[in-house]
Amino acid sequence: MKIQHPVYYGDYLQLPKILDAQAPESAKYGKPAHDETLFIIIHQTYELWFKQILHELGSVREIMLKPFVPSTDLSVIHSRLERIITIQKILVEQIQIMETMTSVDFMEFRDYLVPASGFQSLQFRLVEATLGIKPQHRMEIEKQFFNSRLNPEDRARLEEAEKKESILELLEAWLSRMPFFDFEGFDFWGEYSLAVDKMLDHDQEIISANPGLSEKLRQMELKNLELTRDSFSVLLDGHKYQELVAAGKAKLSQKAILSAIFIHLYRDYPALQMPFQILNSLVEIDEKFTTWRYRHAIMVQRILGTKIGTGGSSGHEYLKSTTERNRAFLDLFNLATFLIPRTMTPKLPDYVKDQLDIVYDSFQS
Amino acid sequence: MKIQHPVYYGDYLQLPKILDAQAPESAKYGKPAHDETLFIIIHQTYELWFKQILHELGSVREIMLKPFVPSTDLSVIHSRLERIITIQKILVEQIQIMETMTSVDFMEFRDYLVPASGFQSLQFRLVEATLGIKPQHRMEIEKQFFNSRLNPEDRARLEEAEKKESILELLEAWLSRMPFFDFEGFDFWGEYSLAVDKMLDHDQEIISANPGLSEKLRQMELKNLELTRDSFSVLLDGHKYQELVAAGKAKLSQKAILSAIFIHLYRDYPALQMPFQILNSLVEIDEKFTTWRYRHAIMVQRILGTKIGTGGSSGHEYLKSTTERNRAFLDLFNLATFLIPRTMTPKLPDYVKDQLDIVYDSFQS
Amino acid sequence: MKIQHPVYYGDYLQLPKILDAQAPESAKYGKPAHDETLFIIIHQTYELWFKQILHELGSVREIMLKPFVPSTDLSVIHSRLERIITIQKILVEQIQIMETMTSVDFMEFRDYLVPASGFQSLQFRLVEATLGIKPQHRMEIEKQFFNSRLNPEDRARLEEAEKKESILELLEAWLSRMPFFDFEGFDFWGEYSLAVDKMLDHDQEIISANPGLSEKLRQMELKNLELTRDSFSVLLDGHKYQELVAAGKAKLSQKAILSAIFIHLYRDYPALQMPFQILNSLVEIDEKFTTWRYRHAIMVQRILGTKIGTGGSSGHEYLKSTTERNRAFLDLFNLATFLIPRTMTPKLPDYVKDQLDIVYDSFQS
Amino acid sequence: MKIQHPVYYGDYLQLPKILDAQAPESAKYGKPAHDETLFIIIHQTYELWFKQILHELGSVREIMLKPFVPSTDLSVIHSRLERIITIQKILVEQIQIMETMTSVDFMEFRDYLVPASGFQSLQFRLVEATLGIKPQHRMEIEKQFFNSRLNPEDRARLEEAEKKESILELLEAWLSRMPFFDFEGFDFWGEYSLAVDKMLDHDQEIISANPGLSEKLRQMELKNLELTRDSFSVLLDGHKYQELVAAGKAKLSQKAILSAIFIHLYRDYPALQMPFQILNSLVEIDEKFTTWRYRHAIMVQRILGTKIGTGGSSGHEYLKSTTERNRAFLDLFNLATFLIPRTMTPKLPDYVKDQLDIVYDSFQS
Repeated sequence: MKIQHPVYYGDYLQLPKILDAQAPESAKYGKPAHDETLFIIIHQTYELWFKQILHELGSVREIMLKPFVPSTDLSVIHSRLERIITIQKILVEQIQIMETMTSVDFMEFRDYLVPASGFQSLQFRLVEATLGIKPQHRMEIEKQFFNSRLNPEDRARLEEAEKKESILELLEAWLSRMPFFDFEGFDFWGEYSLAVDKMLDHDQEIISANPGLSEKLRQMELKNLELTRDSFSVLLDGHKYQELVAAGKAKLSQKAILSAIFIHLYRDYPALQMPFQILNSLVEIDEKFTTWRYRHAIMVQRILGTKIGTGGSSGHEYLKSTTERNRAFLDLFNLATFLIPRTMTPKLPDYVKDQLDIVYDSFQS
Repeated sequence: MKIQHPVYYGDYLQLPKILDAQAPESAKYGKPAHDETLFIIIHQTYELWFKQILHELGSVREIMLKPFVPSTDLSVIHSRLERIITIQKILVEQIQIMETMTSVDFMEFRDYLVPASGFQSLQFRLVEATLGIKPQHRMEIEKQFFNSRLNPEDRARLEEAEKKESILELLEAWLSRMPFFDFEGFDFWGEYSLAVDKMLDHDQEIISANPGLSEKLRQMELKNLELTRDSFSVLLDGHKYQELVAAGKAKLSQKAILSAIFIHLYRDYPALQMPFQILNSLVEIDEKFTTWRYRHAIMVQRILGTKIGTGGSSGHEYLKSTTERNRAFLDLFNLATFLIPRTMTPKLPDYVKDQLDIVYDSFQS
Repeated sequence: MKIQHPVYYGDYLQLPKILDAQAPESAKYGKPAHDETLFIIIHQTYELWFKQILHELGSVREIMLKPFVPSTDLSVIHSRLERIITIQKILVEQIQIMETMTSVDFMEFRDYLVPASGFQSLQFRLVEATLGIKPQHRMEIEKQFFNSRLNPEDRARLEEAEKKESILELLEAWLSRMPFFDFEGFDFWGEYSLAVDKMLDHDQEIISANPGLSEKLRQMELKNLELTRDSFSVLLDGHKYQELVAAGKAKLSQKAILSAIFIHLYRDYPALQMPFQILNSLVEIDEKFTTWRYRHAIMVQRILGTKIGTGGSSGHEYLKSTTERNRAFLDLFNLATFLIPRTMTPKLPDYVKDQLDIVYDSFQS
Repeated sequence: MKIQHPVYYGDYLQLPKILDAQAPESAKYGKPAHDETLFIIIHQTYELWFKQILHELGSVREIMLKPFVPSTDLSVIHSRLERIITIQKILVEQIQIMETMTSVDFMEFRDYLVPASGFQSLQFRLVEATLGIKPQHRMEIEKQFFNSRLNPEDRARLEEAEKKESILELLEAWLSRMPFFDFEGFDFWGEYSLAVDKMLDHDQEIISANPGLSEKLRQMELKNLELTRDSFSVLLDGHKYQELVAAGKAKLSQKAILSAIFIHLYRDYPALQMPFQILNSLVEIDEKFTTWRYRHAIMVQRILGTKIGTGGSSGHEYLKSTTERNRAFLDLFNLATFLIPRTMTPKLPDYVKDQLDIVYDSFQS
């Protein structure tokens, strides 16, 4: 390697471009509003971070597109997902910078920004699409906001991205390929099913004997327990689970979700440590975006009340509606329902254990 | 002052008591669960912080109970409220410690804790009551949880606290005493009303001319604007506002809310700087508890799914229902609706300004 | 006001420019390093935030340049300083994003970045200069790094900024203009001096009687107390204090520091609430940059060990040397030395109190 | 399992004890200081968290004491270390709660607390000792503070803990047992050594050709490079490294540090993923305590200036001296020096790779 040209800080970061990209509208109208600069800069940093997140997600997609994901790539996937989470923490924290702008400060320039709106952030939609949010997952009101907000070129880019395999779909494929459904001479899922029954019977006893519940609450709890029983029976019935998926109530297939459960239950084995951490990271990414949407909606309400925002629209309902909805990995988030106590978890036969394990000392020369 | 006795760290903090107060139930059953210690200790730190918050709120109440709150006490109130907010940040952050406990770890000891439940935290209820949440503000399901959860002694203490004047009520009184309703020879609220009309007409123009809105969205926005107009007309009509309060849709009286608006609009005057900061702190305290409830509900869902928790009940619906509801200072949170741009804010006559101001150089000897 | 042209999100934020400004050097050499994108983007966000900080500091300077700072401007100054602090929190937090890049990842592109170096960030030097760091405050090694690092144009801009009045100098002027040095018929500083003696005598008793100190430690403490006595005697002697300033051991004049002490002691009076908060904000700004430098130095050590970084130099000593040094408001940071307990604080005569106070009820029509 | 007795929230958490353990000294003197309650409560939460950290460290020790650490226990170790880190974040964040107490507020009760001092926190010393800080690592001044501060019983408990094998010592043993020193037919460390020479020669070229360095700086950098060369030659020479350890300049043996380097370089293999994460967690634990000590020292200076604190002593020098010193895993913190770029890292022969890997698909029945 030969260094061919010297690189300088300002040129490398293209600072002349970056630092000359703030042109407040209020100044153009002869009424410069001090806080508009903040408004521009904070959004620019958000967009830079979205670009970084897309960079990480893109590289994760590429790895997961391989027909066989090499074991040494799993920690690469994991560390890139963890980086996204670290970035998301900052996205959430940054809202407090925006909150230093009061309602009255904001109104000084709000009117100049019609019809600009955060709904026009292509990159944020690309992030959602890459994770796994498809048009059919979005609510009617959300789609309306898009149709009138994204420009044709951006809409085309989004549609293209939505057609590609998302991380969710690649996860589905990866989990479905795993060999946890049928062990020779070991009926794992039969044993799991027995353990579940035992656990739920035990829960029922607890509810029935609980001195802290009024009769009304007890009935509520027992009804709730029945719903949990139903969830398990659907989980373990391939046909019923398929109906759930068809009805849009689950995104992952039965095979994929069973693999995820297996990984959770035996996560301490070397072969499953990294898969376990990857599943957790994906849930955390959803989680952080949910928190971000929630904090963002609260901030908007605090600055605007019921008044219109930039873009000349209120978008309240939209903001609230997406807070919880746009979780790509909702099935994983809800996985706790299907986990059972360690003491009840089926013991694995040795030949299965051996395959999940590495005996460290064995590779000694 | 004479130091009468030496004080040692461990004795001063009563560490023998504090550090001997962790007795995991799982150990009593001969099945010690590693994570139960965490579960106990984190709840103990929460309770210690609740005690500290009650200490601060109690001192604020005492100051606000004075028939005339001295101006030098306002910064004391403010700094104590800000301390509460700083503590609340930690309460929220701490949830990530709890999140290091996985579902499977939790199930190892959950069953031993029947019917213990976080709903039995007397101190948290006292905090809510001291801020301003009265029984009539609580939902039916929330009350049910109480009736069967708090022990008689604790219930009595809570009821007693609910009878006392809350910070919300003291704030109401303080704001209502302020002299911003009727200035001699200056029809402030008339001018404000004109400014509001101008602002809303302007908003209407923006919505109508906005190229970024579909016809459907435009109609939605215009309807929304009419609702905002209605809000203002209620605000400025003593009789209608009283009906709003009677219907439980507002907690503060018209007088109080008008004072709050005045303070927001003229917050830069020395006389109003501290009142403005106090109003903001109260909203922030609500805000932080809302975030805490939200994060707490998410964490529970992630650890339990739809299964029962400690206490042998799920409490999901309860947790979700209170997230947004239990804001004592909701009227202040929604205040942005009633603020108008600085350029439209009525100019104050000099004699009013003088009363709000301090001419620093004047007190020179 | 008439909206003359529609504004769209992407155009408004100049996203085509912003999002096209990442050109990894490693790709130019045909060896694209995944993490170089992160390296570029995080530095770009830093530079955007530095621009925002300069925007805020610039506006604060402008207000403070007024021969008489209007009382209503003080809360503007304060809220802008607080905004800077909120941004700084993010600057510090962001370091954890950088920390997701491991040593091995970094080495994949480090070599392509010669001689680019963070020492070439003009904006960061401008921030320091605007706060109050002048060339004479910088260490020799720091200057060497500059001389060879900043390009001539940037150096010129920095030198120009260093010639302007800094916030520190404007603070000096503002504090010195305050009327707290000579009250008619009330020898404030004489009383303060008596209180100080009383306090230190008391401290001496405590040290002498402390059962928790070995003889060696007791002597150390007594010596330390003598140094504190000396500090006070210098503080109250205009001539000696002037020598301290001349020797570069203090930056603010005696007059300014005495005003700052007065503000601290009587901060609860309406006239002093905002000045008190402003002083605190300035210390906090210093503090946050100190933390940022410290965390930055630690991160570099963790990624590089003793190896050279980008720019082909190590810069360790430089990084460590500036951590604590570049505090513009060190005198305010150390102010606690000169504060006395509330019970010992001189009572102000009524006519002084009246000037510091606002009797809220008095401006009622 | 049969639930034998109902458990209630307040009893379970022993709240009567916990919430009755705040007895401000100032009240005993008839001069209740509002902020003393905060001072007590924050220290109590610190001690509760120290107890939790000791609980986690104790369990990690127990696992590491096993002559052969099962691979499934590694993720248990890792998740408990990560929990400690999460707790430490809160310990650092909590300092901002303490910072809401101003100098003047603190002085209202400081005098009553002689000779209580944070130096008397037995648990914090136990944490340090369990991690690996032995008496010989402490500075003279630090020891003096102890000798006069801890009561005899606590001193005995500390000494006992210091005699036990620390996590550092157990890590030493674990790393030394690893089989990375001598591969059959593959001279790994020879190849590593060649790669190092190549890397440093390359660095030398960069320094020599760097247009951004003045002659003076260039010489400085070249000298620095020689020091790095020396470090490597010591690393690879068993005898010289032993001398380093004997001189107290390194804590881990050559074998252990070489294993750590190997783990860092090949961390993506399933067999090394968890060991890599464990090493990182240990460095992070050190790091967080360092940050905590630093922030704590700054806070004390801000509240006290050069005055004495509780306990009637200043302890400045002590606080500053330990900030950076008490890192148990300093060798790992400095490891970056010995890492080489991925492109230069020796390729492992297949038989070595196979031992580090798990071929996921292989364990299919």
